[in-house]
Amino acid sequence: MTEPESAPSLAQRRFLAIPGLERNLMGRHPVSPQDELRGIIAELDRSDDATWDRYGDGGPVAALENQVAALLGKPAAVMFPSGTMAQQSVLRVWCDRQGSRRIAIPGLSHLLHHEQDGPRLLNDFEWALLTTGAATGGVVPTVDHLATIPGGLGAALLELPLRDGGYLLPSWEELEAFSLACSDRGVPLHLDGARIWESAPHLGHSPAEIAALADTVYVSFYKGLRGLAGAVVAGPEEVIAEVRLWRSRHGGTLFTMLPYAVSALRGLRDELPRMAEYHERALQMADLLAAKGIRTFPERPHCNAFRLFVEAPGDVVTERVVAVMERERLAVTAQWRDSEDVPGWSWTEFTVGPATMDWSPRRAVDLLARVLLG
Amino acid sequence: MTEPESAPSLAQRRFLAIPGLERNLMGRHPVSPQDELRGIIAELDRSDDATWDRYGDGGPVAALENQVAALLGKPAAVMFPSGTMAQQSVLRVWCDRQGSRRIAIPGLSHLLHHEQDGPRLLNDFEWALLTTGAATGGVVPTVDHLATIPGGLGAALLELPLRDGGYLLPSWEELEAFSLACSDRGVPLHLDGARIWESAPHLGHSPAEIAALADTVYVSFYKGLRGLAGAVVAGPEEVIAEVRLWRSRHGGTLFTMLPYAVSALRGLRDELPRMAEYHERALQMADLLAAKGIRTFPERPHCNAFRLFVEAPGDVVTERVVAVMERERLAVTAQWRDSEDVPGWSWTEFTVGPATMDWSPRRAVDLLARVLLG
Repeated sequence: MTEPESAPSLAQRRFLAIPGLERNLMGRHPVSPQDELRGIIAELDRSDDATWDRYGDGGPVAALENQVAALLGKPAAVMFPSGTMAQQSVLRVWCDRQGSRRIAIPGLSHLLHHEQDGPRLLNDFEWALLTTGAATGGVVPTVDHLATIPGGLGAALLELPLRDGGYLLPSWEELEAFSLACSDRGVPLHLDGARIWESAPHLGHSPAEIAALADTVYVSFYKGLRGLAGAVVAGPEEVIAEVRLWRSRHGGTLFTMLPYAVSALRGLRDELPRMAEYHERALQMADLLAAKGIRTFPERPHCNAFRLFVEAPGDVVTERVVAVMERERLAVTAQWRDSEDVPGWSWTEFTVGPATMDWSPRRAVDLLARVLLG
Repeated sequence: MTEPESAPSLAQRRFLAIPGLERNLMGRHPVSPQDELRGIIAELDRSDDATWDRYGDGGPVAALENQVAALLGKPAAVMFPSGTMAQQSVLRVWCDRQGSRRIAIPGLSHLLHHEQDGPRLLNDFEWALLTTGAATGGVVPTVDHLATIPGGLGAALLELPLRDGGYLLPSWEELEAFSLACSDRGVPLHLDGARIWESAPHLGHSPAEIAALADTVYVSFYKGLRGLAGAVVAGPEEVIAEVRLWRSRHGGTLFTMLPYAVSALRGLRDELPRMAEYHERALQMADLLAAKGIRTFPERPHCNAFRLFVEAPGDVVTERVVAVMERERLAVTAQWRDSEDVPGWSWTEFTVGPATMDWSPRRAVDLLARVLLG
């Protein structure tokens, strides 16, 4: 007797369908590894400094560090292979300088939920939670939250936008007030700016103006800027010099980061100018989705990404999405999850990117309604 | 009055000359980033699975993990962006399991001298030194050294070859005895196999036979295998599953590692079979160098790399090397350092690689003598 072959799970079917995709409603266009690398070669061909970095020194890595420092109006910057490492490194420097391991942080921060507890296990950080509670409670940290945390702090961290809160941003005034409260208290303010580029339109200020409110900023390249991977931390010269040591300590000083750096430079040139357009499209789609009975959170998205809610179990909606991936080679959303709150409802995240712009807002929303509502 | 322009330093001149190099006596051939990426595209074109890994799952990353596990005869393997991170991760798993932070390690280990003290600062390792003393003392750890360390140990580490000892290897019998002593004592043995591929010819055993003496093995791809960067740790299934968590914690689970994985796979196919040839060439060159009055250590190299010694100050020899880089677009060695021991002598490391094989042993040594002896 042989084991009966079990039917592939929804997750397996979805995974298997990805390489065959021809179109994508969300985020970036599907691209083969070969085409992506050809794009990087083309970037190098048009560059006047197509040389290798060696262990992160020189070449496109240095060019990227200089360009991000300039964009954020900071004296210095250092590239990392990942944001997880970038933020541990810079927070470690602040904590060592401040003589405190306590970091004021939103309870929904990436560091607490998506990093396998690494920041605490490796760098002994202690979390002083600015906010707690449900993802869609709509609460981002303010000066009032900071005031409830007594005692010394190594740093305070704000995530712009707070992704696990539904890509939520504070208002510009709230952000200014938070920054002022930190400096009044002598606490370094670090921004988790994984999506800072995507945040600028709603805040109504440039990345440099946003960064000016903080002591250090981490930015990412493989979200809205559609790079391969990689991150940068920008800040004061002598802080960044120390952060660089922590990069080596965490094992992030690679023999070369050239492919990542070149794709990031391309993103800064080609994708960064489109962020307002993506946000505008998210606002248009949210309005049209509401008219179809598909709820979004925030009702008026704060950036190019937001949550979608449908009154059906997660597996049912995911089945609809995967069936269209298999049949039409078209992906409209990622997987759906049951609501932890309202029975019978499920949700997913939706991100507007270059692929989304191939559809008019109306056609995009008609497509979503056709697939998601079954 | 303007500042007088100071002459560039030797290190600056060397750095500036690198992109213009046409030939290289040591290691790999000079290659432009574009040509390197074209090579990776060609690899993808001939592959039957040219898909993206996502956060290190699937694609060429999975193919590399499977291939290295098979080559080393271990049940499982996990890819890392760097060896520094790979070794911290696996040693952390062993230490947590053993309930001890003490690691028996050679005093000249990479972890103690080239990682900015990261392993200790991040993972609280304590070093129990198996050996101490000068680089060229010619001592690699044996069972006798292990016996001098009393008490519990989280792990023991051997570096094959011990690079800062002059690329020194133990004999096969010494290695077997060390492995037995570790298992008798219940101490996991981890191999720093950054150059394990290069070590197999001298040990007279395959990488799998060497790996069978240890519980876990780290291997690298950008030394003899001329990859872009990257590392793998191989070992038991459930250990590797835990090591994978530590990869995320250190910030090594990148959105994609495809370019690195593909270049590593190419290295395993094209470069791995050449290791015996490179070692043989190192032995021939060492003999011929001795006849020219250029000393090597070891006198009979243990792998494809060894040290060169010349009776002249480091700056003087480096000046000769850099002048030839500038004038002839030809690099014969890296920088030279003054001996810390014998006044008036200096040394550098020399690595035989594909570029070296463009010269006959005699012509290679004639060239070295012409440049280095001035």
